[in-house]
Amino acid sequence: MLTLYDYLDSGNGYKCRLILALLNTPYTRVELDLDKGETRTPQFLARNPNGRIPALELEDGTVLPESNAILYYLADGTAYLPTERLARAQVMQWLFFEQYSHEPYVATPRWIIRHLGRDHPRMTEMPERLEKGRAAFAVMEQHLQRHDYFVGQRYSIADIALYAYTHRAHEGDHDLSPWPALRAWLDRVATQPGHIKMLPGD
Amino acid sequence: MLTLYDYLDSGNGYKCRLILALLNTPYTRVELDLDKGETRTPQFLARNPNGRIPALELEDGTVLPESNAILYYLADGTAYLPTERLARAQVMQWLFFEQYSHEPYVATPRWIIRHLGRDHPRMTEMPERLEKGRAAFAVMEQHLQRHDYFVGQRYSIADIALYAYTHRAHEGDHDLSPWPALRAWLDRVATQPGHIKMLPGD
Repeated sequence: MLTLYDYLDSGNGYKCRLILALLNTPYTRVELDLDKGETRTPQFLARNPNGRIPALELEDGTVLPESNAILYYLADGTAYLPTERLARAQVMQWLFFEQYSHEPYVATPRWIIRHLGRDHPRMTEMPERLEKGRAAFAVMEQHLQRHDYFVGQRYSIADIALYAYTHRAHEGDHDLSPWPALRAWLDRVATQPGHIKMLPGD
Repeated sequence: MLTLYDYLDSGNGYKCRLILALLNTPYTRVELDLDKGETRTPQFLARNPNGRIPALELEDGTVLPESNAILYYLADGTAYLPTERLARAQVMQWLFFEQYSHEPYVATPRWIIRHLGRDHPRMTEMPERLEKGRAAFAVMEQHLQRHDYFVGQRYSIADIALYAYTHRAHEGDHDLSPWPALRAWLDRVATQPGHIKMLPGD
């Protein structure tokens, strides 16, 4: 049985829960509270020296960190990762876009507000992060004006990776109203067969 | 013929030049000077809406951005990307580690010093960036104490991606002397058959 080291409020954790649900793969979920430092214990650091969730423990004890690498591993050989060389590389393109141009400017503002609070000094980072987040949304919008999904006109892990924090962007003070194609894509993802929501209260 | 939109002083560009050299693949290189805004012209934005180099233009006109996606595309089907499922996912793990935990704390300090200058206001970011860079080097060192390369005991695009900025880290005020296994790995990469240096003056 697979074990997912996870934290419910993490969009990166949700990426893994979502692909596992879509694939109907059984797994054990271990909740580690980031705010309480539970990913920095000696026990967890022995499993994942990077001290981050999510991390997927395979049946042989191998621990695979990095949410997008976990998506890649779980989707390999399924309909959620294309087999054609260029299409696979384009999935990678969007996964790296998500990590580099999207995550720090969409996920981090949400983290600052929800986990540090609006009176935290890091709120001074918000204007620049929100501006760069809007640039990332503009790139996504431009693509989605001409495509239903990010790669090959079908739902793939590129969509899953980008959906995770985009659908919570409002919790980081982002306003998605300027991006109609992006909002239509959020609806397409949320109505996929087998889709699950991120948090119990959603 | 492939076309690489590139900038000589970019480690991300160098990743692509290095794999192309190792594979002995002919290509046309187009230099775009980031400092002069040459990646933000309407002509280039029409090719890559993200406005960043490197970007690889294929023979059919498709443009693939994101250095690590370009590495993946070029290495697919070669000895530089394993075929086994878990090993491929572990290559992804290190590519995402590079983008998320390494690039902003190793590449960006170098960028600030070399392209903005030591009197630029962004120098105030340096202490935090250098600290987080040291945390990334510690993760790399721990792995390299027990392995010659990042995945499967052989040179792969995981090594290429991590080498690009690590071997210039000193130009961003990083000191690699605390990491002997990491320095030995830098030497192993630099002595691979077909290796090329990043800059003409190196």
